[in-house]
Amino acid sequence: MYKILGVDPGSLRTGFGIIAGEGDDFHYVASGTIVPGKNGQRYDKLKAIYEQIEQVIAHHEPTHFAIENVFYSKNPKSTLVLGEARGAAILAAALAGLPVFEYSAREVKQSVTGQGGADKSQVCFMLGRILHMKETPQSNDESDALAVAVCHAFKNREWSLP
Amino acid sequence: MYKILGVDPGSLRTGFGIIAGEGDDFHYVASGTIVPGKNGQRYDKLKAIYEQIEQVIAHHEPTHFAIENVFYSKNPKSTLVLGEARGAAILAAALAGLPVFEYSAREVKQSVTGQGGADKSQVCFMLGRILHMKETPQSNDESDALAVAVCHAFKNREWSLP
Repeated sequence: MYKILGVDPGSLRTGFGIIAGEGDDFHYVASGTIVPGKNGQRYDKLKAIYEQIEQVIAHHEPTHFAIENVFYSKNPKSTLVLGEARGAAILAAALAGLPVFEYSAREVKQSVTGQGGADKSQVCFMLGRILHMKETPQSNDESDALAVAVCHAFKNREWSLP
Repeated sequence: MYKILGVDPGSLRTGFGIIAGEGDDFHYVASGTIVPGKNGQRYDKLKAIYEQIEQVIAHHEPTHFAIENVFYSKNPKSTLVLGEARGAAILAAALAGLPVFEYSAREVKQSVTGQGGADKSQVCFMLGRILHMKETPQSNDESDALAVAVCHAFKNREWSLP
């Protein structure tokens, strides 16, 4: 069985999602959002992202880590802060010994829906089906994180062939 | 006695410098450059930055951490990669329990030379004097890291008054 942790980092909120599979079939395991709080210093926020992802890894023991690569903001400061958040998330995975994979937004949409230009609602609709969820997930940081995990699973189907 | 670790992170090279002082006087302790290597993945580079700064902290036991805030590249991808490197360096300090301080390039130059618009050679000349170094340091990532450490020391002179 493989278990993929997908992460969608942001300066304000960082989504995570875990999927697991065996054979060519996979399902939703868990997801959530890390909200470091508005009042802390920037380094407190990085610490919160790092420590919470470390906890998720310790609890769920994923075998792979996938992250979207990447949204550039028009504002250089936002891009830098986003980079810091990504660094914290990637480090938590790398220091736990997980292999790290990166996919572009277009690859993620293409994998999940068959269309690189799909909109968010299509992505969510397909996520609900692919992951056997009772309800279609809402479009947010959690669903973005689940989508990159699903992308990684589809890109590596050969693992799962019997 | 206080001991300050200054760090100048970059996507290719990360400089670090340690100064220590007592009273109103401080001196050079150590400095170096972390070069993660060109061949690894991005996450290997982040891991190298994190782990080497962690080692420097374990070895020298600084009491404060200072970092320059910040150079934005014109290229958004470079800014993002720089943000990731900064995130790794800041995390190493924050997880070791060090207080983290950030200073702009202008504040650093102003503190070290008395002029916010000073050029690199002036900064290096003054660093050599302030830190009682036998030779004027060369202008590189190490001297940039020492300069931000000195800036932090000057900005907090009240610590050091008898």
